[in-house]
Parts: sequence; C-alpha cells; structure tokens
Amino acid sequence: MRVELISIGDELLIGQTINTNAAWIGEQLTLRGASVDFCTVIKDQNEIIKASLDSALSRVDVVIITGGLGPTKDDITKHTLAEYFGKKLEINKEVLEHVTQFFERRTSEMLEVNVQQAALPKGAKVMKNNVGTAPGMWFDVEQKVVISLPGVPYEMKDILIESGFGMLEDRFGIGSLYHKTIHLQGIGESFLSDRIKDLELNLFENGIGLAYLPSPGIVRLRLTGTSSDSDKIKIQEFIDCISERLPQHVFGDGVDSLSKVIGSILTSRSLSVGTAESCTGGAIAKEIVSVAGSSNYFKGSIVSYSNEVKANVLGVNEDDMNVFGAVSEQVVIQMAVNGRSALNVDYCLATSGVAGPDGGTLDKPVGMFWVAIAAKEGVKAKMFHFGDNRGRNIQIAVLTVLNLLRCELHNIKMEKS
Amino acid sequence: MRVELISIGDELLIGQTINTNAAWIGEQLTLRGASVDFCTVIKDQNEIIKASLDSALSRVDVVIITGGLGPTKDDITKHTLAEYFGKKLEINKEVLEHVTQFFERRTSEMLEVNVQQAALPKGAKVMKNNVGTAPGMWFDVEQKVVISLPGVPYEMKDILIESGFGMLEDRFGIGSLYHKTIHLQGIGESFLSDRIKDLELNLFENGIGLAYLPSPGIVRLRLTGTSSDSDKIKIQEFIDCISERLPQHVFGDGVDSLSKVIGSILTSRSLSVGTAESCTGGAIAKEIVSVAGSSNYFKGSIVSYSNEVKANVLGVNEDDMNVFGAVSEQVVIQMAVNGRSALNVDYCLATSGVAGPDGGTLDKPVGMFWVAIAAKEGVKAKMFHFGDNRGRNIQIAVLTVLNLLRCELHNIKMEKS
Repeated sequence: MRVELISIGDELLIGQTINTNAAWIGEQLTLRGASVDFCTVIKDQNEIIKASLDSALSRVDVVIITGGLGPTKDDITKHTLAEYFGKKLEINKEVLEHVTQFFERRTSEMLEVNVQQAALPKGAKVMKNNVGTAPGMWFDVEQKVVISLPGVPYEMKDILIESGFGMLEDRFGIGSLYHKTIHLQGIGESFLSDRIKDLELNLFENGIGLAYLPSPGIVRLRLTGTSSDSDKIKIQEFIDCISERLPQHVFGDGVDSLSKVIGSILTSRSLSVGTAESCTGGAIAKEIVSVAGSSNYFKGSIVSYSNEVKANVLGVNEDDMNVFGAVSEQVVIQMAVNGRSALNVDYCLATSGVAGPDGGTLDKPVGMFWVAIAAKEGVKAKMFHFGDNRGRNIQIAVLTVLNLLRCELHNIKMEKS
Repeated sequence: MRVELISIGDELLIGQTINTNAAWIGEQLTLRGASVDFCTVIKDQNEIIKASLDSALSRVDVVIITGGLGPTKDDITKHTLAEYFGKKLEINKEVLEHVTQFFERRTSEMLEVNVQQAALPKGAKVMKNNVGTAPGMWFDVEQKVVISLPGVPYEMKDILIESGFGMLEDRFGIGSLYHKTIHLQGIGESFLSDRIKDLELNLFENGIGLAYLPSPGIVRLRLTGTSSDSDKIKIQEFIDCISERLPQHVFGDGVDSLSKVIGSILTSRSLSVGTAESCTGGAIAKEIVSVAGSSNYFKGSIVSYSNEVKANVLGVNEDDMNVFGAVSEQVVIQMAVNGRSALNVDYCLATSGVAGPDGGTLDKPVGMFWVAIAAKEGVKAKMFHFGDNRGRNIQIAVLTVLNLLRCELHNIKMEKS
C-alpha cells in the first residue's frame, strides 16, 4: 500500500503552522507496514487541489488529505472534492445528529456554520469524528482510495485510530518493511559514525539500511530491513553491540524518551526525584512530568532563577555566589544538595549555566553549563560547553542532566566530555 | 518569485522528524515577499530526487532542497545533484580550509568523512556554512535556481540568513503580498467567527483574505492583502476593531507569544513574577524563561507536584488538602499567596488540576484545572474545564494562566468562561 499525504493550507506553506500531522500519519502508517512515498503541501486553492489529486492518484494507492474542513469561510476542501468527484453536497442525518449532540454535551450554542459541517458529497463514506464536528470522508476511486480529514491534529488522529486505519487494513494488505530506532544522547553524528564504523560496514554488507537522525542533544539511528526473521536478528545484534559499546550514550529505542526511560527505572525501584533549576528554568521538571504517571516519582522542583531565590528558598551560601558566581561548581552542588533536602527526594538534579544570548563573559561564555546530581551517596557535578542558541542550550542541558541521572541509576561511568 | 521546497529524507516521511525546516523557510520567504507554492517531501532515492527536480523546475522559479548533505553513508543529495547537472565532484579548497578550521576550533579530530564534505559538484556556487561543515550549494539552471542546503535546522538557517536570502533578493524581485497575523487566547474558532461576523464580511467585501489557524488554547487570524497602503489600512482597522471588541482574548500580533507580551509589560513596569505549579509541573516557568532577558522579571518557581511539597515548601494547610483536595480553590489560592511570599514577587501564578490520563473522579474529572494569581491587591482564582489529553491540557493551562496575568496587568475584566 503506497501512500501520498496532501496537506492543504497556506498556513503550512507560509510557516505559521508546522506540519506535525504529516509526521504523525507517516509514523503510524509506517508502523502498519504501509509505505509513505510522498507528502505534498499545497495552497487551499481549487485548481491546485485538483491537480495534486490527479498527480497523487497517478503514483500511489491511497491519498490522505488533511485540512480545509473547518466551519469557516477559508475552508474549501469539501466543496473542491465534491466538484472533483462530480457529487452534490447533502446534509447527512447521522452526522447532523452527532454535531447537534456535540454542542448539547458542551452546553454550547450551535451555529449555522456548524450545521453545514453535516453536508457531505453524495456517496462519500462517513468517518466519524468523536472529538469534533467535521467528519472524515472516504472516497473509492476505482482501485484507489482518497481520504479527507480535518486538519486539527487530535480530530485527525481520532478519526484514523477509530476507523481509518482499520478501513485501510481491511482494504489493502500489509507491507513488509521493518524499522527499528535507537536513541543516543551526548555524542555527535560524526563521532558516533567513527565509533561504529565496523558495525556500520557489517549492516551494509547484510543489506540493512542505517540512517542518522540528529537533533539537538540526541542522535537517533534508524535501522531498516525486511520483516524476515534473519533481518530482525541482524538488527537486534547491531543494537546489542552498540548498547554494549556505548552504554553512556544509548538510552532507548522506538518511542522511548529519556524522561520515560528514567520514569520506569525510578518507578520500578520506588525512588523519587526533584530538581533545583536555574538556567533551565523549569524545563527539566516539565520534561519529567510530560510522562503520564510521573507523580509516582516526581515530587517537585525549586526553580531559582534569581540569586535571591537561590539564597532564600534553596539556602545557597551568598558568599559563595559572590566569590564563585552563580554559574559555578560550588553553587550547583549546593543547589542539588539543598534541593534534595527541601524536596525530600532520593535524587535532585541541578543546573546553573549561561543560556544566552546575553550574560556571557570570557571565563563563562554563553553555552557553559554546570549540572549536578545529589543522591544519598553524595553529589557529582560536571561542566559542559554547549552552543550559542538559548532554546537549544536549554534543551541540550535538560537531556544531558536526564542522561546523567540514567547513567547514575545504571552505575555507568561517564567518559570525559 | 515562486518557490518550491523539496525536503529530502525518509525520516520525514516515516514521521521520525517533523518538518520544521519547511515551516521556517516558508515563513522567511513569505516575509520577503516570495510565494511558496509547494512543499514536497520525498525519500532519499536518486530517481525520486531527480523526478521531483524535473517537476519543481517546471512550475516554479526557485527550488530549495534541504537534507541529505551530512557526512554519513545515507546522505546522497550531493551525488544525485552532481549526476543531475552532469558535473563531477571536486574538493573545494576554501571549503576544505573552513572544515579544517571548524574542527581545530573545537579541538576535535577531523575524520576522512569530514574531508569529503568539501567535495562539491563543479560549477556550484558555495554558500558558506559558518556553524557546520556541509556548505550550501547554488546552481543556476537557465533563468531558474536550485539551492541545496543541509537538513540540520540551525545550519540551514545560518546559510540562508548569511547569504541565501541576499542572493535570492539580488537575483529576483520582491513580491507584493502583505500578511499580518493576530493571536487570540481562550476562545474557540466557531465562537470567534460568530463574534466577528460583521468584520469578516467587511474584509471579504474589501478583498482581504482571512484565515483561522487554531492550535490548542490559541487561535491565530491571518489577514492577507496586497502591499498597497489602502489594504494595509483596512487590515489595521480590522485589528483595531477586534482588539477593542475582544480585549480579553486578543494578545498580540506577528511573532508575539504570550510570554513575550507579558515579559515586555513586566519589564516596562519593573514588576516581577514567579509561579507555584502543581499539574503544569514547571511548564509555566519554562514558557516564561523561553524569552531572552526573562531574568529581568522572573525570579523563580516552586513546583509542588506532591502534597508533601505543597505542605512543606509552600506551606499549604494539610487539613485543607484533606478536606477540599489538592485540586480546589482553597489550595490553589494558598499556593499562589504563599508562593508570592516565598519567592518575593509582585505576581505569583498557581495551577492545580487533573492533567490526565488518570486521576479523574466524577467531581473532578480529567481536564479540570484551578488557576490563581496572587498580587499585592489580593488573589483571584478561576476554574476551567479543558479536554482529556494530558499534553494539551498542560499547554492550554499554561496559556490560560499567562493570559489571565496579561488581563490583570491591563485591568481587563474576564468574561465568565
């Protein structure tokens, strides 16, 4: 089953909205064995939508369109599809009832534009929208299929999960590619490639694809083979080798995030964690609580962005701040140790650094970060130099300190950075 | 100047990477008056890249390719372009020197794969990469241009900002579309549309485009006209009208975020802010410090995810937590008031809610959030019902409480929610 995604909307082309829909659909279809071959983003203009449908139907089996189904005047997808397939719009009673109930449940007033959301091109199969008002639509085009979905991400996802994927699986078979991804923190793409040269050659000789997917602080390696047992075994062997060679960097596979990995270790050992953050400003805590169930191990955080809060709430020694500066080993250690007591946790993670763009000095340039972990056994601190972009520095600092905690929990010794 | 973006990489199609590059380039080119008509995402396969180039060169003036220029084996864009244009790869001395210096500055070892990054198709113009090793390349194709850039976002951005945009402006003229965007918090798309029906009709009659761009907690309205003075005036009149009609919702325009808007109000009045967060787990603090210079007004935060930290660090009354529950008006008010004292700030924002997916009860379902703002004049609390998705609930809660603070600072009375 070969697929093309067509994302409709000027907002995507002019960059006001990032196309997360295409990423999500691509991931889900790939997991189900389909091959997503093209994704095209186009303007919401009648002629362009029709030309893109022509082109997509000439090269794939399934076309999934997102966007342009909203209640407002700029949403033209439904009318364009009706015209493309030569069908009239008719109010669908079932959909109208659903829309009416949707507004009743919310004790909200229903507007005429919402009634019009129940008008569908004749012959289109309804794909029920449980979380919104615009239904998805399924069109059979000889042996091929065109699906039109709302652009609102959670509505699109709900429709595909509740009906779309099942309908596609019933209609088309399942492909045969096998993907596996592993995640590494704290090592750059070139250095990683150099450290695993031999493993990479071995994969290549065995016909297994290897792709490097770098992002700030993380490199993901994606392995691709057929779904044969022998390919799966080769891929697993590679993962075992690299995990043994670089345990301080490899932290998970598939959809693992560092916060999930840490969450499951802490949960299984009934340990708790908290943070005492300066430059990261709550970003470590936010990342930890992004995991459902994090209340089992995360107790809280003291974000001491000012020296005043470092002194008054965390009890950092003011003389030390004056002598060594807030970005120093001495201060980050006190933050971690005092934070651990104040929050009464097993592990307390602390950060103090120069996120940028301003505030750098010769001694302490933008990108310099101290991180520390306090535990029952004592406290460890380490210095890093990241880059010069504020957002990226905060993100890398969060990942770095979470990976240090993972290594600490696994008794993995860190290399010199 | 009409543009097509071609993003190369299986990772984009299978959804492991979200295509933020296309969004950024689209935004930047639109601001410069170019029209981004298509964005195509394709696999890193020789034949597909060549076919997409054919198709793009048939319909636009400029093709910007991102991705596939890295040092590793899966990066094939440069070789494919050399073949497409019938040129050999040659080591470019200037680029080699840059790459060598790049590694020297980082006191990192230079690898053979990095040397190969200096090999370019003969005749390609070099677009210098100051922040990485793979240069961008510019190819003249009769009257048209093909640009190839690395897929690493900050490298791609640096190359376009330092040379690419200037080269394109020199080569092509500047278009004539004028965009303006305003942002609203706390009102849904349909209700907004109903509240501004008359203004919308007026825009339509004047030929000004209006697009609704909803995202969790925020609706953006994008207005599009020509760059004529009369269109600019009509657009400004619309913005003035809607700002006066819905002051509790309209919070900014252009690239404003709520955290930036609040930051500039607090800075101009020398006021300070802190947070006492439960369910949002540091996400408000993180959003506030995402703004450079936030240390001027943000002092810190106490994230009290557990009742123990609420009692011991924030001093919330334990009896009240037992009687009313952690998600209650009584508790959120104490969090805000006590947080304000502990952090010694002018305003303290507090949240306590049920983010989900678990932990909901009949009385306090998933999505129920209490938020409070403590100030010198007293404390205000308000209850909201958001949705059933954890990440989205946290995001909406952050935006809601920041907007409440904005209204408070501007003395805007909130409507009943």
